[in-house]
Amino acid sequence: MTGVPRQTPVDGPTVAVVGGGQLARMMQQAAIALGVPLRLLAEASDVSAAQVIPDAQVGAASDLDAVRRVADGCAVLTFDHEHVSTEHLRTLAAEGVACRPGPSALVHAQDKAVMRRRLASLDVPCPRWRIVESEADLNAAAEALGGYPLVLKTTRGGYDGRGVWVVESAAQSQRAFVAAGIAGVEILAEERVDFVRELACVVARSPSGQTAAYPVVESVQRDGICHEVVAPAPGLGEDLAVRAQRIALRVAGELDVTGVLAVEMFETRDGRVLVNELAMRPHNSGHWSIDGAVTSQFENHLRAVLDLPLGSARARAQWTVMVNVLGGDVERLYDGYLHVYARDPGIKVHLYGKSVRPGRKVGHVTAHGDDLEQVRARARHAAGWFAGTEDEEDGQ
Amino acid sequence: MTGVPRQTPVDGPTVAVVGGGQLARMMQQAAIALGVPLRLLAEASDVSAAQVIPDAQVGAASDLDAVRRVADGCAVLTFDHEHVSTEHLRTLAAEGVACRPGPSALVHAQDKAVMRRRLASLDVPCPRWRIVESEADLNAAAEALGGYPLVLKTTRGGYDGRGVWVVESAAQSQRAFVAAGIAGVEILAEERVDFVRELACVVARSPSGQTAAYPVVESVQRDGICHEVVAPAPGLGEDLAVRAQRIALRVAGELDVTGVLAVEMFETRDGRVLVNELAMRPHNSGHWSIDGAVTSQFENHLRAVLDLPLGSARARAQWTVMVNVLGGDVERLYDGYLHVYARDPGIKVHLYGKSVRPGRKVGHVTAHGDDLEQVRARARHAAGWFAGTEDEEDGQ
Repeated sequence: MTGVPRQTPVDGPTVAVVGGGQLARMMQQAAIALGVPLRLLAEASDVSAAQVIPDAQVGAASDLDAVRRVADGCAVLTFDHEHVSTEHLRTLAAEGVACRPGPSALVHAQDKAVMRRRLASLDVPCPRWRIVESEADLNAAAEALGGYPLVLKTTRGGYDGRGVWVVESAAQSQRAFVAAGIAGVEILAEERVDFVRELACVVARSPSGQTAAYPVVESVQRDGICHEVVAPAPGLGEDLAVRAQRIALRVAGELDVTGVLAVEMFETRDGRVLVNELAMRPHNSGHWSIDGAVTSQFENHLRAVLDLPLGSARARAQWTVMVNVLGGDVERLYDGYLHVYARDPGIKVHLYGKSVRPGRKVGHVTAHGDDLEQVRARARHAAGWFAGTEDEEDGQ
Repeated sequence: MTGVPRQTPVDGPTVAVVGGGQLARMMQQAAIALGVPLRLLAEASDVSAAQVIPDAQVGAASDLDAVRRVADGCAVLTFDHEHVSTEHLRTLAAEGVACRPGPSALVHAQDKAVMRRRLASLDVPCPRWRIVESEADLNAAAEALGGYPLVLKTTRGGYDGRGVWVVESAAQSQRAFVAAGIAGVEILAEERVDFVRELACVVARSPSGQTAAYPVVESVQRDGICHEVVAPAPGLGEDLAVRAQRIALRVAGELDVTGVLAVEMFETRDGRVLVNELAMRPHNSGHWSIDGAVTSQFENHLRAVLDLPLGSARARAQWTVMVNVLGGDVERLYDGYLHVYARDPGIKVHLYGKSVRPGRKVGHVTAHGDDLEQVRARARHAAGWFAGTEDEEDGQ
C-alpha cells in the first residue's frame, strides 16, 4: 500500500522544487514545521529528497513538460540546483508560474559571463576577468589581468570545482578549451586572487524586497569543494563584515533575487572583499544555520519564495562549525553513529541518504560552543570518522 | 506519477511508527537528519504524518495484521500513541519484532491501574488512589483518600482530559461509571492533589540502559490539555528538580522503557512531587526541545529505540516557552504567518497539517530568550493569533 494517493493538505500553498538533492531534502525539514507541502521533481525515485517527500515526480530538470507538470497547481516553483534552462523558465513564467528566483535573476548563477558583466556594471568588487575565445587570446588576457597564473572557468555547467582550471601558461589551457568546446560555452579567465581566506554571505530576499542577512562565515575549500564553514568568520573586522553583507544584499536587490542568495567571496591580503561566485538557493556555506541560527537558511528560503516575513538570521551560539562528510572508506555511514554520538553528545549529524562514493558530499556535521578550537576539533573529528580518515586518537 | 515505488535507502535501518499524528510528523524531521527512513502505519492517507512520510501504509493500530505488515523488515517498531493492544504487541514480540517500548513497559502508559500498582510497589510518590468498582464503593474510597472532591479516571483510553472527571459526591459520578462501563474498563479514584503547579520531566532511555534527562519543565494545562510549557520550570529549587528527574529516570529504568518517557507530576504545596501520568513516546511537554534543546525529544526518541548513544538534552537558551496552537476561529492557519512572522522574527512555528476544529491541537509555537516574561508573551501572542483569540494590542 506504499504510495497511497494523498489528498492536498488542508492549509497553505504547495511549493514545487526542481531537483532531489540534499538541499531539497533539508528544505523538507523546514517545510514540515511550516506546514507547507513540497512537490518534488526528482532525477530518480530514490534520490536524497525523494526519500523524504511523498509528493515526488520523476523527471529531468531539462524537460520543460516535466517542470511544467510539477509546477502545476503549486504557488511557486523553486530549485535545489541551477541546472534549469533559462528559456524554459521564461516560458513557464509567461504561462503564469511564479519562478523564484526568476529566470532573469537565476541566469546570474548559471552563467559566469553574465554574472561578471552585471556585477561589473554595478561596480561590485570582483577579481579582474576577461572572456577568452581561444588559446590565442590567453596571453593577451594574462597581460591585462596581471599575468599568470590565471583561473579559467567554463561560463556554464561547473560546480564543486568542476569546470575550473588554474593555468600557468597558454599551453596548459588545452583541457579547459576542449571542455568548453564540448559544452558549447565560453571561457572566463580571472586573475588568481591572492586571498587570505574565502568568506561567504548568505542572504534571503522576498518578492516584497524584505531581506535577512546571515553572519559572514569563513569557508574552507578543499579541491574546489566547500569543506568546512566557521560561523561567524573568526577575527573578521566589523567593517569588512558589514561590507560583505552590504555586497550580498546589494546583489540580491539589484538582481531581484527571491529566496536565498549565497555570495562566495575572497578576502584579499590588502583588506578587500571580491565576489567569487553566486548561488541562488540554500548553499553549503549556510548549512550551519540549521543547528546554529534562529532560522535556518532552508526555512528562510521557503519563507522568502512564499513572500512570508523572514526569520531572524542571528547565530544562537558564539561559534558554530560545519564540516562536510565526504564519501570515503566507510561504506555504511550509519555505523559511525555508535562512535560519533557516544564521543560527543552535542554533535549534530545530517546524513543525506546518498550512497557513498569517494569525495561525494554525503552529509555534514555541526558543532557549536564558546571555544572555537574545541568546536572545530569536534566537528572535524565527527566528519572524519564518517569519512574513515579519523582515528579515535585524532582530533581530541 | 505521485507515489512512484521507492527503493530502500542505501544506509541504516528503517523505523516503523504506529500512528500518523503530529508526533510521527515531528519524528520525520529528526529522521531526515539521521538518514533513517520511517515507515508509517497511518489512520488515513492524509493524516498529519502521512503528508510528510513517503513510506506510509493505511491501517488501524488495532489491526494486528496491519501492524505486523508495517513492522516487517523494519529494525524496530515504535509509536505515535499508546492505543495499541498489549496482546498484539506480545504476539509481535514473540515473532521477533523489536517493539520499543515493549508491551510490558507500554502497558503502564495504557492502563492507569497497572501504572498505579507498579509505582506503588516501587514507592514512587503518587497521589493516593483506589480502584472503585461501582458508585457504591465511592464513599468508602473518598474516606480512604481524604474526602471529596475525587478525581475519577477510566483506567484505559483517556487522553487530553477525556476520561477524567472531578466529582464532589458519589451522585456526580454517574457519567464516569457509564463511560467506564461502555469501555469495559475500571475506574481509578484519586485524591485531588492541592498542587502549586504541574511539572513534567521527559527522559529518553535506550535498550542498553543509557538515559538522558531533559530539564524539568512547568506545564500549564487548560481543560485537561497541556497548553503552555516553560523550560526550565521557573523558580524550581535544585533539590526538587533533581528529585523529579530521579523519579523519571527510576521509572524509566524499573519499567524498562525504551524511547522517550514523559512523567507528568504535581508539585504540592508541601514541597513534594507526585507522579500524575506517564507517556511512553515524545510528549507535548517536550515539544520545546525542537527549538530549545541541543537534541530534540524526537531525535532522542529515535536514537533511543535504535539503541544509538543519546544526544545532549541541555537547553540552548535561558528560557524556552512553548504554547500550543488550538483550533479556533481562524480557518486558514497559514494566513497567520503574515502577522506572526512580521511581528516576531525569532518565533518558531510548527503547524501540523491538521484541519481546524475548536480546541484541537493543530500546531505549537516556541520562543526563547533571556527574559521569561517577554518570551512567554511572545509565544502566547503568536499561538493566540493562530487561534483567533489575540488582537494586535494584546501580549505586547
